[in-house]
Amino acid sequence: MMTKIAFIGLGNMGGPMAQNLVKAGYDVCGFDLVPEALDQLEQAGGSKAESVAEAVQGASAVISMLPAGKQVESLYLGDGGLFKTVGSHCLVIDCSTIEADVARKVGQQAEEQGIDFIDAPVSGGTAGAEAGTLTFMVGGRAETVEQARPYLEVMGQNIFHAGGAGAGQLAKICNNMLLAILMTGTSEALKLGIDNGLDPAVLSEIMNNSSGGNWVLEKYNPVPGVMPQAPASHGYRGGFMVGLMAKDLGLAMNTAAGSNTATPMASLAENLYKIHSIHSDSTLDFSSIIQLYDSVR
Amino acid sequence: MMTKIAFIGLGNMGGPMAQNLVKAGYDVCGFDLVPEALDQLEQAGGSKAESVAEAVQGASAVISMLPAGKQVESLYLGDGGLFKTVGSHCLVIDCSTIEADVARKVGQQAEEQGIDFIDAPVSGGTAGAEAGTLTFMVGGRAETVEQARPYLEVMGQNIFHAGGAGAGQLAKICNNMLLAILMTGTSEALKLGIDNGLDPAVLSEIMNNSSGGNWVLEKYNPVPGVMPQAPASHGYRGGFMVGLMAKDLGLAMNTAAGSNTATPMASLAENLYKIHSIHSDSTLDFSSIIQLYDSVR
Amino acid sequence: MMTKIAFIGLGNMGGPMAQNLVKAGYDVCGFDLVPEALDQLEQAGGSKAESVAEAVQGASAVISMLPAGKQVESLYLGDGGLFKTVGSHCLVIDCSTIEADVARKVGQQAEEQGIDFIDAPVSGGTAGAEAGTLTFMVGGRAETVEQARPYLEVMGQNIFHAGGAGAGQLAKICNNMLLAILMTGTSEALKLGIDNGLDPAVLSEIMNNSSGGNWVLEKYNPVPGVMPQAPASHGYRGGFMVGLMAKDLGLAMNTAAGSNTATPMASLAENLYKIHSIHSDSTLDFSSIIQLYDSVR
Amino acid sequence: MMTKIAFIGLGNMGGPMAQNLVKAGYDVCGFDLVPEALDQLEQAGGSKAESVAEAVQGASAVISMLPAGKQVESLYLGDGGLFKTVGSHCLVIDCSTIEADVARKVGQQAEEQGIDFIDAPVSGGTAGAEAGTLTFMVGGRAETVEQARPYLEVMGQNIFHAGGAGAGQLAKICNNMLLAILMTGTSEALKLGIDNGLDPAVLSEIMNNSSGGNWVLEKYNPVPGVMPQAPASHGYRGGFMVGLMAKDLGLAMNTAAGSNTATPMASLAENLYKIHSIHSDSTLDFSSIIQLYDSVR
Repeated sequence: MMTKIAFIGLGNMGGPMAQNLVKAGYDVCGFDLVPEALDQLEQAGGSKAESVAEAVQGASAVISMLPAGKQVESLYLGDGGLFKTVGSHCLVIDCSTIEADVARKVGQQAEEQGIDFIDAPVSGGTAGAEAGTLTFMVGGRAETVEQARPYLEVMGQNIFHAGGAGAGQLAKICNNMLLAILMTGTSEALKLGIDNGLDPAVLSEIMNNSSGGNWVLEKYNPVPGVMPQAPASHGYRGGFMVGLMAKDLGLAMNTAAGSNTATPMASLAENLYKIHSIHSDSTLDFSSIIQLYDSVR
Repeated sequence: MMTKIAFIGLGNMGGPMAQNLVKAGYDVCGFDLVPEALDQLEQAGGSKAESVAEAVQGASAVISMLPAGKQVESLYLGDGGLFKTVGSHCLVIDCSTIEADVARKVGQQAEEQGIDFIDAPVSGGTAGAEAGTLTFMVGGRAETVEQARPYLEVMGQNIFHAGGAGAGQLAKICNNMLLAILMTGTSEALKLGIDNGLDPAVLSEIMNNSSGGNWVLEKYNPVPGVMPQAPASHGYRGGFMVGLMAKDLGLAMNTAAGSNTATPMASLAENLYKIHSIHSDSTLDFSSIIQLYDSVR
Repeated sequence: MMTKIAFIGLGNMGGPMAQNLVKAGYDVCGFDLVPEALDQLEQAGGSKAESVAEAVQGASAVISMLPAGKQVESLYLGDGGLFKTVGSHCLVIDCSTIEADVARKVGQQAEEQGIDFIDAPVSGGTAGAEAGTLTFMVGGRAETVEQARPYLEVMGQNIFHAGGAGAGQLAKICNNMLLAILMTGTSEALKLGIDNGLDPAVLSEIMNNSSGGNWVLEKYNPVPGVMPQAPASHGYRGGFMVGLMAKDLGLAMNTAAGSNTATPMASLAENLYKIHSIHSDSTLDFSSIIQLYDSVR
Repeated sequence: MMTKIAFIGLGNMGGPMAQNLVKAGYDVCGFDLVPEALDQLEQAGGSKAESVAEAVQGASAVISMLPAGKQVESLYLGDGGLFKTVGSHCLVIDCSTIEADVARKVGQQAEEQGIDFIDAPVSGGTAGAEAGTLTFMVGGRAETVEQARPYLEVMGQNIFHAGGAGAGQLAKICNNMLLAILMTGTSEALKLGIDNGLDPAVLSEIMNNSSGGNWVLEKYNPVPGVMPQAPASHGYRGGFMVGLMAKDLGLAMNTAAGSNTATPMASLAENLYKIHSIHSDSTLDFSSIIQLYDSVR
């Protein structure tokens, strides 16, 4: 008999993640408020539930992928929450990107009720979700991470154990905050070169092989035409939307406020993204921030 | 008979670069205002000149490594400048880090007098100069770059042709501006993680293998103890001094003013380095900027 | 018979405010967790209560001055909250500086229970509290503001009606955010002049009579010696502490996050204050930020 | 016989300034490269010269109002410069806004040749030039300032003696740098209030009477409709153009680089103005920066 997994939240990320679990031979029972999302899972070989309760019935693992902390709290905590109904044998993996505080609170309540819980936000976007090449940043006990590894390896390529409860969220927040700085900073350096007559492709290659080297230059050049496969070369479509980067930067600013950490560069990057979304389309890829520096839109 | 090279400027960088040319079999005749620098070259097998004029006598190539644009102008241009005395058969390579404007002006005057000139600033620090592993960012004609390549390959590992006259300086300015952003940004991300309980080594590894990956995380971690060989693990001694980064950021700001390029992130990084030098020791390595975010100095 | 006022929170601000009400002939019954604060009120002619419930017994008005939103919520809301015990005849004035969201929530609950409530945070510091010259920024219905005016006029000089529930908090947050920008900006302009040989007193006078004129130049010059009565001329002691400005900037950042408003200058000012408190003493007056720009501390 | 004044540079500022001198009874002989500018002065009762040399012939004072330091240097210095031709009895007043360095250099050369020179940049815009209500910020010897006062009082209302040679330029640079910070900061504070439901006119009045008070709130509100006479209420037309503020901020950044002064807030304001001009019309009034924070343009 197949191991049953309940998958809550079948959106752009959750949908393909659940389907990868189906392909790997698991009995995946999904729940989502959008009927089409449920139908897609069914067509891919999974089953659909009419309620969360039905989905988790008899499941060995619950995986959730929800938009924000509020939904995660409401799914697991409180009188009607899953932590009251799933047994202590059940493994719970939350892949949503949410406040570390909320993740810690959920983790603590899980612990009190003897439930194995990890926070496991991902990076890699919808493309990574479909290809099963996501990166997981995981917070929780080491044993629980090992227990979850077989499932995570089906959906992703890299699994990093960042520390205790909430550490997965923290690592992702730190990483994406740094990514915003890399993108704005790389855009400025490239624009300075272009404005002074350098070829952006040549400058990109030089910097990427020097001390300016970074992920953006390697995989995600913001200048149209430098990398054929990058969103910049496709009208900044696809990729990681400005609105989502703005959400992650909001989480970072919130975290910095909580720990009283000075983050002048990150705060500026956050504000530049805010200004960019005011005057642009927040569904564009986040590398479109280079347009803020450029008169040609 | 050995090819003679005149080497002007035998400081912390120029000294070891000249010695590498000696080791490769060239007849290197040096000039510097500091007698000890001349003695060191002589001990290493080179010869010393009493004047610039004597140094360049019969040389096939002139290489200069000077502190600032002013000295470069004064060496090559004007009535007493080298461009009046070296013949058109002579190859001139300026390795100083200076304003692109000045490099372009020097390049243009060289061209007018039929002299082959390239601007070829380096990155890699004194360690790279000693090991012969510098990176050269070169501006000038493609033929001249090829002509210079044999000399450059003795002193460095990577030779990038960035474009026409001044392009070497521009590429270096853009790169180092980006490097300052990488360092301040990475420091903020690490500090945010540390303040929220993450282990900096674990967080560094996660981010370096994710979209936050960059040269600083790979080679130059600013948190003491994470990388045994990094300056951070040796009291921020050695490496690339705060004062030199400040100089390069000044060149970047000047270039951005000239081309009217918006560089909010770089301008902030420049000001953070200024504030850091006000309250700290500007001979520390530039990764010490993380102390600006930290109450423990 | 004298009108009874319950005053909750008798700290550095609340204490003298309550005493001014006593002087104006009101029967002020105070409550605070610190016994000394209660004794001081009694010595000034007020009376002390053993509990909040006792304080509000028969009071025509309740005035509160508490450190943060959490305490305000806990005082008024919930099962044990005052809104369950005070009658609808009672006027409630909260003078604490808290999140506008919390003020709105408290205001709404007051409204639902027929209680007249205003949020009325102050500016003017402890000196203004003692002298009865505070500025009140008030949110609530116009009738309630008129009803509260006689009490407010005893404690302050200017009473501004900013709008509906929460508007008092918002006005104060906007004002203090702008103040932080004025202080950092004025410090930079003065430092730039000083570093280039200008006399700070002369430059201050020129700018204050030109388009650079602002409250900081008029009342609160950050350069020691320019204004004998300013905190800068007394070792940055007294005045408005760095730690309190940091708290208000935190509220501003939080409000901007909620309304998705871009505030690059304010975010930078907030981070400069954070960096300043990391390396300095957060009980200094907030004009000490000029030390961040200065090598002489 | 009337006192003759030579006026060099009859643009938007210089033109009306020269005409005010005519009205006050001086014999003003003007020079400008634009024939229409000369004609206007003639119609207003002045006379026109065919060359600078002709203009200064027999003049008791030379006043210049030129676009940049380059033109000022070229007018006064060098072999063909005025300092070779005007006698030592002649008073020279430069009203251009230029680098303090250049002003100091010109001042020094004047001193060496026994010529009385002051740098006297103005604020107040074309309206102030026409109404004769300019503010002069003056650098030079006290005696020379007194000697120049009768002329300055015809053209302006406030005359501030900032210090020795170049001090007038420095004071203006510091003031306008601060003004840019006041404008961006006030825009952010107003936008934060508006986004949270406050009436901008009410909030403006509250802040202007509190510690947020500044020249922008008093005279130059950036929100359309709050002040009928402000450029914001007339499509941001008239007033002080974004392009000119950008020029002055460039001078400030240059001065800060020279004295190694940290100006994080001013550098950010400068970059925000750069971004604003990239996406907007640089002939708009500088209060249009509030549009950078706003989705409604």
